[in-house]
Amino acid sequence: MDIVAAVEGERALATELFDQLRRDGLDEPGVSRDPYGAGEQRGHATVAAAAERMGLRIGRDEAANLYMTLPGRDPDAPQVIVGSHLDSVPHGGNFDGAAGVVAGLVAASALQRGGITLDRDLVVMGIRAEESIWFQVSYIGSRGALGTLPDGALDVRRIDTNRTLAEHIAECGGDPDALRVGKRHLDPARIAAYLELHIEQAPSLVEAGKPVAICTGIPGNFRYPEASIEGSHDHVGLPRRFRRDAAVAGAEFAMAMDRLWEEYDARGIPMACTIGRFYTDPAAHGLTIVPGSFHFSLDVRAYDEAVLAELDQKVDAIIAGIEQRRGVRFHRGSKARAAIGAVDPAIREALTVGAAALGIPTLDLGSPASHDAAAFAAVGVPMGMIFVRNANGSHNPREAMEIDDFLAGTALLAKYLVDTYAKTSG
Amino acid sequence: MDIVAAVEGERALATELFDQLRRDGLDEPGVSRDPYGAGEQRGHATVAAAAERMGLRIGRDEAANLYMTLPGRDPDAPQVIVGSHLDSVPHGGNFDGAAGVVAGLVAASALQRGGITLDRDLVVMGIRAEESIWFQVSYIGSRGALGTLPDGALDVRRIDTNRTLAEHIAECGGDPDALRVGKRHLDPARIAAYLELHIEQAPSLVEAGKPVAICTGIPGNFRYPEASIEGSHDHVGLPRRFRRDAAVAGAEFAMAMDRLWEEYDARGIPMACTIGRFYTDPAAHGLTIVPGSFHFSLDVRAYDEAVLAELDQKVDAIIAGIEQRRGVRFHRGSKARAAIGAVDPAIREALTVGAAALGIPTLDLGSPASHDAAAFAAVGVPMGMIFVRNANGSHNPREAMEIDDFLAGTALLAKYLVDTYAKTSG
Repeated sequence: MDIVAAVEGERALATELFDQLRRDGLDEPGVSRDPYGAGEQRGHATVAAAAERMGLRIGRDEAANLYMTLPGRDPDAPQVIVGSHLDSVPHGGNFDGAAGVVAGLVAASALQRGGITLDRDLVVMGIRAEESIWFQVSYIGSRGALGTLPDGALDVRRIDTNRTLAEHIAECGGDPDALRVGKRHLDPARIAAYLELHIEQAPSLVEAGKPVAICTGIPGNFRYPEASIEGSHDHVGLPRRFRRDAAVAGAEFAMAMDRLWEEYDARGIPMACTIGRFYTDPAAHGLTIVPGSFHFSLDVRAYDEAVLAELDQKVDAIIAGIEQRRGVRFHRGSKARAAIGAVDPAIREALTVGAAALGIPTLDLGSPASHDAAAFAAVGVPMGMIFVRNANGSHNPREAMEIDDFLAGTALLAKYLVDTYAKTSG
Repeated sequence: MDIVAAVEGERALATELFDQLRRDGLDEPGVSRDPYGAGEQRGHATVAAAAERMGLRIGRDEAANLYMTLPGRDPDAPQVIVGSHLDSVPHGGNFDGAAGVVAGLVAASALQRGGITLDRDLVVMGIRAEESIWFQVSYIGSRGALGTLPDGALDVRRIDTNRTLAEHIAECGGDPDALRVGKRHLDPARIAAYLELHIEQAPSLVEAGKPVAICTGIPGNFRYPEASIEGSHDHVGLPRRFRRDAAVAGAEFAMAMDRLWEEYDARGIPMACTIGRFYTDPAAHGLTIVPGSFHFSLDVRAYDEAVLAELDQKVDAIIAGIEQRRGVRFHRGSKARAAIGAVDPAIREALTVGAAALGIPTLDLGSPASHDAAAFAAVGVPMGMIFVRNANGSHNPREAMEIDDFLAGTALLAKYLVDTYAKTSG
């Protein structure tokens, strides 16, 4: 049976699931699926109920992730996982995360409809707590499953409830004590591949007029979440040559980073730089006071460790130059790093070949954002991602993914599964 | 009698007054002479007591300013006023403001000591509430005396007490109702000149190695106290070409203003630009969010109305360019203006000649800051200012004026009074 037709046959399943998920999470404007909270719980219940109706095997782990398994011919062969997260940012859109779980169910159902049995188990995974805005920790569900949660993660508090991650996990049926001693539910050696479909969070596909992109990599980053600049608070009348203006130093830093990015763009080397927090202290600043202190955060991301290392050095050089020119001192604060999430070349190649065979126009695209897939790549699981065209960005209620584009991306996913794991059958 | 020797003879008066004023205002670190509050009241009491001991005539007006008069030969001739303010910023230094009042008393005492009677009354004025940090209104005392308080000023609240200026004035023996109907205590036509000695608030004199500067003008300004930039809040992964980053737009604005200032400095055209508030909103910003809104204040000052007008146009052009390049929109908010406080050429010339005669090395200096003198200039009173060398800036406890420098500036002031108003006597 034609896999595209089989996936097309699941259009109703897809729209019903998206509609129910939207109703479950409704929190105008947009949806809120708060991780380890009522919003995410309703999403998990909806997805699990659909999987049960399909006859999939339901399981959960210590981090309360959801596993929905379509058995394959060899239950002992390393399984293939298709997943994404079911939480959202507050007042976000309906598709960021959930689309990847729905895609897994739609693909599984299409395989059933097509009478195709894979050579191994297909596990559709509903992952917990990917959005870092809530606990200020990323990939909680996937890293919880893989036993790679960072130290102290279980004791961080959700910004709105002020209760710990451990309390939240326990409330949702998980076992934080097991996680605390490093228990892992998933053994990387027992996973053949991790596939994730996700809406694009930038308008590259809209701009290109294509429905689907094949991920070339998930960026690594280095971050200074709480950096500051120390200058001198002075009187508004102080001549320029005497000033040690921390805010102008901050402005010079931001512009230098912006020029650096422009230069890398021109050279065709993908990266991104975000200075999300950038502020004089509201308790100390004033109309007629030269700012003597300034605060900022920095997130620099790229797809190549050598590029990241080079950018790291350039940031240091920029800071040194500004300190010297403006008589200020930068305090970088703590530094966080995330490794690059490499896409498995064979998966990327197979997706490219599959899209060509299906006649789906695709773009090769470095993921702008981070995803659970990076947590799998970090432990050596072969990983691939498919992005679906989406207008208006993500993390907001105006997310706009067309169901046709979603079905195109899911057909590509299903074809990959069939071509890779059902070569001798179907 | 040698006026320098007469002023030198008042060294003890000066040091005792400064010491008592410091004790009166002590509020570690530094001194706080809160306007229309306990700190300023104690300063007024100390100064008035000294003037009474000198036999000066004591008076007060509806704004509770203090007038200490050394009678001259013709009580009907327009008087000459020497004054400054007795309030300070919170935890400020001992000299910003008070030095000008002490200088007036020292000069008056030196005239008495020298047996010199001026041809008109010399009025030493202890002015109220010059520091705008408390009520967010500048020159309250001097404009109260001159009947030029801005609309609504009496109803503003002191930032720490949250009580209105009118309440504060009434508590200190003033008459806010009279001020409200525009009553003025001082008729500009009845003032021959207003002289003010003030510490320098920048280190120009320290740098030049000179004790005294003669003011060439008080800057006018234009201000946007509450400007903002509207961009688009977006995901950290958004490529540069799609971003409408309000904070980077703010950085570009700050750097453009900094370059503009550097260029004017190089051309020898004095100005100053201060972006005192410069911030992403702490309630909305985040490490992984592209800033969609940004806030800033702007204070641009210069000594020539044509330069100010030119700068105003350049700010507009800078904003238009950034809006066009970065897809953001600036909201300037309310705009405030202050006219330039022109120094009377004859006074400046007389001070220059006097300093040369006394062998005091001087610098010609545009006042970096605003002063009560500007309120007098604004109503047509001939005005002049003398700045005294001071290390470590003002508005902080580290202000450092040497008494020798103070006496040099005061000798110049006294010589001006003698040369101008005692030509036929002394």
